[in-house]
Amino acid sequence: MGITIGIDLGGTNVRAAVVDAAGGILAAHRAALTDRAPQAVAAAVARSAAEALRLAGVSSAAGAAVGVAGMVDRGSGVVLNAPNLGWRDVPFQSLLATALPCPVRICNDLSAAAYGEALAGAGRGAADVALVLVGTGVGSGLILGGRLHEGASGIAGELGHTKVRPGGRLCGCGELGCLEAYAGGANLARRAEESALGAALTAGELEEAAGAGNAAARELLADAGDLLGLACANLVTLLNPSVLILGGGVLQAAPTVKARLVAGVDALAGRNARRALSIRDAALGDDAGVLGAALLAR
Amino acid sequence: MGITIGIDLGGTNVRAAVVDAAGGILAAHRAALTDRAPQAVAAAVARSAAEALRLAGVSSAAGAAVGVAGMVDRGSGVVLNAPNLGWRDVPFQSLLATALPCPVRICNDLSAAAYGEALAGAGRGAADVALVLVGTGVGSGLILGGRLHEGASGIAGELGHTKVRPGGRLCGCGELGCLEAYAGGANLARRAEESALGAALTAGELEEAAGAGNAAARELLADAGDLLGLACANLVTLLNPSVLILGGGVLQAAPTVKARLVAGVDALAGRNARRALSIRDAALGDDAGVLGAALLAR
Repeated sequence: MGITIGIDLGGTNVRAAVVDAAGGILAAHRAALTDRAPQAVAAAVARSAAEALRLAGVSSAAGAAVGVAGMVDRGSGVVLNAPNLGWRDVPFQSLLATALPCPVRICNDLSAAAYGEALAGAGRGAADVALVLVGTGVGSGLILGGRLHEGASGIAGELGHTKVRPGGRLCGCGELGCLEAYAGGANLARRAEESALGAALTAGELEEAAGAGNAAARELLADAGDLLGLACANLVTLLNPSVLILGGGVLQAAPTVKARLVAGVDALAGRNARRALSIRDAALGDDAGVLGAALLAR
Repeated sequence: MGITIGIDLGGTNVRAAVVDAAGGILAAHRAALTDRAPQAVAAAVARSAAEALRLAGVSSAAGAAVGVAGMVDRGSGVVLNAPNLGWRDVPFQSLLATALPCPVRICNDLSAAAYGEALAGAGRGAADVALVLVGTGVGSGLILGGRLHEGASGIAGELGHTKVRPGGRLCGCGELGCLEAYAGGANLARRAEESALGAALTAGELEEAAGAGNAAARELLADAGDLLGLACANLVTLLNPSVLILGGGVLQAAPTVKARLVAGVDALAGRNARRALSIRDAALGDDAGVLGAALLAR
């Protein structure tokens, strides 16, 4: 298979990249999403893909894949739930099929990013790789035995919705006690607002406040990091990956969270699984999603 | 590949089965382990294999695999830790290689059982299957994308050593707060002894006491079931399997534990992952381990 198109669809942007047979990005195009109605988004995706092809000087692609920031049912091509797009049960793959000039599939955006990081980034050469991203939400992607693990309905990797405090905080997904409800950036801001801090601070602002001696900020960051550490440790014990890749805005902006996460893995993962593990920073940045999607489109 | 030998090595018994190309067990042989020294166990395994071949009326096998009740490093063929055999860092595969007349590999016993149940038992036809066994210890085996997931060093599936109460009870593995330290049969007995019950009761005895109105017994069983439910729910959310197979002596003897486990998965697994999941009883009993090992030996 030759040239494929990888597309990363977030809540605010769509980004398309044209990738050649060697895995190189020939050209990329980014556009803001102005209308989040599914039809409008499908059209925006098609425009970005066409624009990227034009920039690359290529007339057609053999296939495309779109990583969607949400829960994707692979078999039916339906986006079950995408809070940042305000979607529930949207048959997005069939909308795309009529908008794009080549075969297209959809998948979870973090699965695509994990596939990109595993194959072409920080996990290069490893067969068992977990990517954990802590940004607005918390997600993971799993490469097991060299293949993307999508699960029975394509929604594997929902580390952010594993329960760390059963019956605890209400998560955006509607369930209680999810990791994301404590450690995702959006929820960190909400927790800051509810705390003695009294304001919806970003992870970077919380880190600054903690550095200046604010106990509430320090406690919030430590709690988020500890819960992430526990969840990652249990993932490592269960799956015995050789590489755990860490990325996302919260971990970049809040070293305290990242340090506690790593300390948690050191302390709580099964010792033999920990021994086999290397913890690395994500290496591809924004390119991971589009590159991974393009590789998945092959 | 034609005939292979599957061997299940527990702490007290060794069982060998000769399996034909169609996956049928031609003959099986079981023997008690009298000496747990690695050399003696390798000899006992070889005797059982030879005896099973003789019973099957077959002169040779194309390969053999041995499922060991312990942590197995696949790459090196070393048993890292097998508490029931009293082994640490035993190069068992090379001992077997000299004792057996065909190529042999070792793996974790629960991985072998999961492979057997997934391919030929309760998971037949499903690509993503998790087997959770609650017996003396707690373990799991994972079939993902139709293949046994063994992980980077072959020790994937250690659900029993994921942490459910970080810093909590000391587990047989030397770590704190493992699921097995609360819900494994051996630890349930220890917890019963430490409780108001004051005696090392089996799961069946605890169930009887709970049925007769004993609050301490009821509480112990409920706690074990709830923690198993949480761990299984998080496994389901993370891996999105289509089948979760439950087995093992504790779940058979203590319906309370099993009911709480299932209720925990219902309540705590991500709803879309739960929707894709079927929970089933293990179907092959003791045959799962030998059959799975024989299939792995192909």
